[in-house]
Amino acid sequence: MPATDTGLQLALELLGVFAFALSGGLVAVRRGLDLVGVVVLAWVAGLGGGIIRDVLIGDVPPVGISDWRLVAVAVAAGLLTFTAHGRVRVVAARTRGLRLGLVTRTVQALDAVGLAVFCVGGSVKALSLGVAPLPAVVVGVITAVGGGLLRDLLAGQVPEVLRRELYAVPALLGATGVVTAHAVGALTDLVLAGSVILVFVIRIVAVGLGLNAPTRLRTGEH
Amino acid sequence: MPATDTGLQLALELLGVFAFALSGGLVAVRRGLDLVGVVVLAWVAGLGGGIIRDVLIGDVPPVGISDWRLVAVAVAAGLLTFTAHGRVRVVAARTRGLRLGLVTRTVQALDAVGLAVFCVGGSVKALSLGVAPLPAVVVGVITAVGGGLLRDLLAGQVPEVLRRELYAVPALLGATGVVTAHAVGALTDLVLAGSVILVFVIRIVAVGLGLNAPTRLRTGEH
Amino acid sequence: MPATDTGLQLALELLGVFAFALSGGLVAVRRGLDLVGVVVLAWVAGLGGGIIRDVLIGDVPPVGISDWRLVAVAVAAGLLTFTAHGRVRVVAARTRGLRLGLVTRTVQALDAVGLAVFCVGGSVKALSLGVAPLPAVVVGVITAVGGGLLRDLLAGQVPEVLRRELYAVPALLGATGVVTAHAVGALTDLVLAGSVILVFVIRIVAVGLGLNAPTRLRTGEH
Repeated sequence: MPATDTGLQLALELLGVFAFALSGGLVAVRRGLDLVGVVVLAWVAGLGGGIIRDVLIGDVPPVGISDWRLVAVAVAAGLLTFTAHGRVRVVAARTRGLRLGLVTRTVQALDAVGLAVFCVGGSVKALSLGVAPLPAVVVGVITAVGGGLLRDLLAGQVPEVLRRELYAVPALLGATGVVTAHAVGALTDLVLAGSVILVFVIRIVAVGLGLNAPTRLRTGEH
Repeated sequence: MPATDTGLQLALELLGVFAFALSGGLVAVRRGLDLVGVVVLAWVAGLGGGIIRDVLIGDVPPVGISDWRLVAVAVAAGLLTFTAHGRVRVVAARTRGLRLGLVTRTVQALDAVGLAVFCVGGSVKALSLGVAPLPAVVVGVITAVGGGLLRDLLAGQVPEVLRRELYAVPALLGATGVVTAHAVGALTDLVLAGSVILVFVIRIVAVGLGLNAPTRLRTGEH
Repeated sequence: MPATDTGLQLALELLGVFAFALSGGLVAVRRGLDLVGVVVLAWVAGLGGGIIRDVLIGDVPPVGISDWRLVAVAVAAGLLTFTAHGRVRVVAARTRGLRLGLVTRTVQALDAVGLAVFCVGGSVKALSLGVAPLPAVVVGVITAVGGGLLRDLLAGQVPEVLRRELYAVPALLGATGVVTAHAVGALTDLVLAGSVILVFVIRIVAVGLGLNAPTRLRTGEH
């Protein structure tokens, strides 16, 4: 979603939308939603963050409803989830979880790509429209976490970003890095790429180590 | 919500708002919400779709908070639901479901009117503000399903549009029809009226036949 | 949120944000959310109403993501809730509920301040941007109740404003008073202050007397 759509940026962004949309489709299938529900949740998860971003910075209509490439990728992810889900389950059962584990890890990796691309791209887009540093950071984070948040709201579950694993923190770091670099006049393509990679790595490490943000609730306390 | 508010268009739109607002009031009463909650849910269900539409296309403040006729109709539907609900139950009990069935069918018919008017009107409004074809279709669908979606979110239930009956599909057909007609320069009053009637009929048939979009979930699979 | 930020207005508004943000933090801690979740819910509860207001009247990016004073106060309230919650529980247990009662009453009083400041300030901001009377009233109410509503949505509970105590009504009175005064050219600082105090008093009395809006649901009826 950066202002200058180079081929790599576009490819990364489409990958991010695809990954997030898959997560939406999976949640929908698990909830027993029909085809319409699966496609809608895929669209919401893949493009909802960018839609909130565009509404907040006044760039309407949002690209999440107007850019056919983004919409097509999100809808395709929904259709794919709907079609492939039963098959994945069967294969996974036959191979004793081996391939399901592979699917899960693939989705987690894609999701980390989406998180990284969206927080960096969201901040860059905000900055390119003249938004000030603080809101540019917030907009970056919202771009990254907003889709999953809307997905969970519509599916009737407390948003994962609020209760599971370090998810918003890498996005906050990435967005802050981009905005800081911009403030000191050092927002080069190299810095952008570095920020995306950094967020991706932090997120993957957090998932791998099972890191969570601290919580107040202890068993039996509440 | 078309740009040219003829008397018939306005009447249809008010009817649609009224029908959707009734659905919001009914959900609120069944949930045991107080008078404020019933009126708020009626307003959200009746006007929420149009409010999202106007935010997405940048026409703020949205007519759903600024046009007193729309607001008055939605609030009136809320007050009516709140006042009449007990009576309807009593009458229905006395007449062995006969009149409640009549009420249900009336609400379903009104709801189909709302769906038809909103998807067509939403697309027309977007087109009249210079929005491109794809986002005009999406905005039309969101106008039609957004109110019910917000209603269900606030009432704490998974949105009906995601899990029940073919609801979004007729709206998608209607919006696509309008945008296609506009693209080929054939968006006459006749085409508009035909689109509204088509969506209405498809929806009524879907309800009557109990048609649903396909779902992946089988009993015992999950 | 009035256009003319005098020191008193700013102080009141920060107090309102702080109170609402505390409520968000408390809901999050009770739900067992982690540090990120607590801060996010504090931010949403404290600033969400103003963010919806700014989106509805087209003043983007909203101050809830761009004014560092507001963001800092909301985040601080979240951190405070997260840090102090365990301690408050222990102290409360030791003193047989005495101090917890004090905390609850303090939060309720702060919340009433927020409600009063936000409905008045929201309407004033809308009027100052040339918004018409009806939407200015609606925007004032949404400013006051929107944060709590989003907080409850994210926490997975039916919004309190829909089901508990007279909450929206004092906000409606306050916003209507401000807009009426503006319409007759009598919107002085005195009227503003009086409106804030009036809403505060009505809300406190409603809480004190346990007043609720009427409801249709009787035990056993449903």
